[in-house]
Amino acid sequence: MSPRYFEDFTVGEEWSYDPWALDEKTVTDFAKQYDPQPMHTDPVAAAEGPHGVVIASGWQTALNCVAPFLEAVMKDTAGLASPGFDVFRWSKPVRAGDPVIPRAKVLEKRVSKSKPDRGLVRFRMWGVNSDGDSVWEVEGPFFILLRPAD
Amino acid sequence: MSPRYFEDFTVGEEWSYDPWALDEKTVTDFAKQYDPQPMHTDPVAAAEGPHGVVIASGWQTALNCVAPFLEAVMKDTAGLASPGFDVFRWSKPVRAGDPVIPRAKVLEKRVSKSKPDRGLVRFRMWGVNSDGDSVWEVEGPFFILLRPAD
Repeated sequence: MSPRYFEDFTVGEEWSYDPWALDEKTVTDFAKQYDPQPMHTDPVAAAEGPHGVVIASGWQTALNCVAPFLEAVMKDTAGLASPGFDVFRWSKPVRAGDPVIPRAKVLEKRVSKSKPDRGLVRFRMWGVNSDGDSVWEVEGPFFILLRPAD
Repeated sequence: MSPRYFEDFTVGEEWSYDPWALDEKTVTDFAKQYDPQPMHTDPVAAAEGPHGVVIASGWQTALNCVAPFLEAVMKDTAGLASPGFDVFRWSKPVRAGDPVIPRAKVLEKRVSKSKPDRGLVRFRMWGVNSDGDSVWEVEGPFFILLRPAD
């Protein structure tokens, strides 16, 4: 199967995926490994806190928001790398059990001036909770190869 | 034990931790779950690519760079949340087996004007490879409570 190239992305194109939700154990297991702050790891302390339950590490929220897009789109794309993000914002807490819809969108694209075999496609990737609020969002470029001339 | 408060952070303070390195299976297992691009998941394809081995998902690099700091410092800090980062940069690939030193530093701090019970401490968190190059870095604030008056 031919991969998806730079030309195959359209500005304004959007993707939306099935909502995920994390149970308490999934939240605390992830946090114990990567982000062991008590608001993520300690259900007893969380019960007395402002949210009543543990809230997911923002990193876990980010990963679960990007994974479906990376699986469905970037996995089969002639992508080179991402240099990072210039927007990276955690806007709302995600409590254990909260459903979040992963979304992605093409914001802009242009061919590289210095390396004309590739282009830069600027994406927004984000997650939306059941109130319709963004819980996390990033914006940044991916480098993607142009379709070979052959 | 009393937690670490806003007053306990000093501008210029730095932390450095033992290097981590990810074996091939750890790289591919993580990537299959969260970032299934072939450069991260497929050792056979990677053997023919520019790096010769799989390279870690940038997300896995980020998590392994922040985890020691979050464990050693933020776990016991009266921290409220992080709103995100205004710098988020992947600078170099991390190949399976490459050692990376996690680092963190306090860049600046100030008391909140609107909510004087808390301050904003701006951190850099990053990872350094065996060439001394940064492989990933972020800069952004954490909200941290001031020490209670009594």
